[in-house]
Amino acid sequence: MTFKRLSLIATLITLSLGSAVAADAPKPESLIKWRQSAFQVIAWNTGRIKAQLEGPYNKDEVVRAANSIAALANSGLGNLFAANTQTGKGWHDTTVKPEFFSDTAKVSELATHFSREATALAQLAPQAGDAAALKPQFVKLTATCKACHDAFKRSE
Amino acid sequence: MTFKRLSLIATLITLSLGSAVAADAPKPESLIKWRQSAFQVIAWNTGRIKAQLEGPYNKDEVVRAANSIAALANSGLGNLFAANTQTGKGWHDTTVKPEFFSDTAKVSELATHFSREATALAQLAPQAGDAAALKPQFVKLTATCKACHDAFKRSE
Repeated sequence: MTFKRLSLIATLITLSLGSAVAADAPKPESLIKWRQSAFQVIAWNTGRIKAQLEGPYNKDEVVRAANSIAALANSGLGNLFAANTQTGKGWHDTTVKPEFFSDTAKVSELATHFSREATALAQLAPQAGDAAALKPQFVKLTATCKACHDAFKRSE
Repeated sequence: MTFKRLSLIATLITLSLGSAVAADAPKPESLIKWRQSAFQVIAWNTGRIKAQLEGPYNKDEVVRAANSIAALANSGLGNLFAANTQTGKGWHDTTVKPEFFSDTAKVSELATHFSREATALAQLAPQAGDAAALKPQFVKLTATCKACHDAFKRSE
């Protein structure tokens, strides 16, 4: 077997493995749809907590909502921002700014803050018996949402 | 002040309170969008676990995904199926069947199964060191997804 033939076989194997990986990897539009969905679910749950702070306080409702936010904040949302998703459409055109894909240090810092404050809220929720006990940590959490939106989200 | 006038004032107050509540309550299209988002997030995470069962097994990835599914399964998704959301559009036209809103006993039963198996998977994940240890519980969980889809979800 010549080197040329071996090399051709190696190339074919590589191409074939490459295709297999590409076929299994989620499509960019799926990744964008999933991240848009995840942030909607977070919005639903922050809205539920806000309603408890404004109205009669239901601790169970706050615990459920805070657990959902914390689970998603720690779920690895960063995986949904693959390099091939800088533009494209999920449920709608992505609103991520190009800077998200270049300023990785800042992305990592803001994601860490979000995860930290969401985890703290979920830990506090079962102990917090009223709005006054929960509110300071909720304000800390929503500040991390705003910081990331200000830096990396285009207005729709 | 006459009774008639008092009665008019009472009616106006009632109407005004009614409007205030309606303004605060999420719109049907928001509820539908949130539930469609929640089920997309669950699909993302079941897909991640499936990939771990088929490929190299990453326990941390499974734990993160299982926690997200369990948090959403226990988040009170039923609140997103208010009576005024039998038809309507979130990201797309709802695919819920009318039976969902009449056969509440079956809905409750299937929701309980989903929640129970999702919680069990999240409890198992940190202990399961490989695909073989996790798979039986994952199969149990996805069976509860299918049971509910078969009963209450129109094909799109």
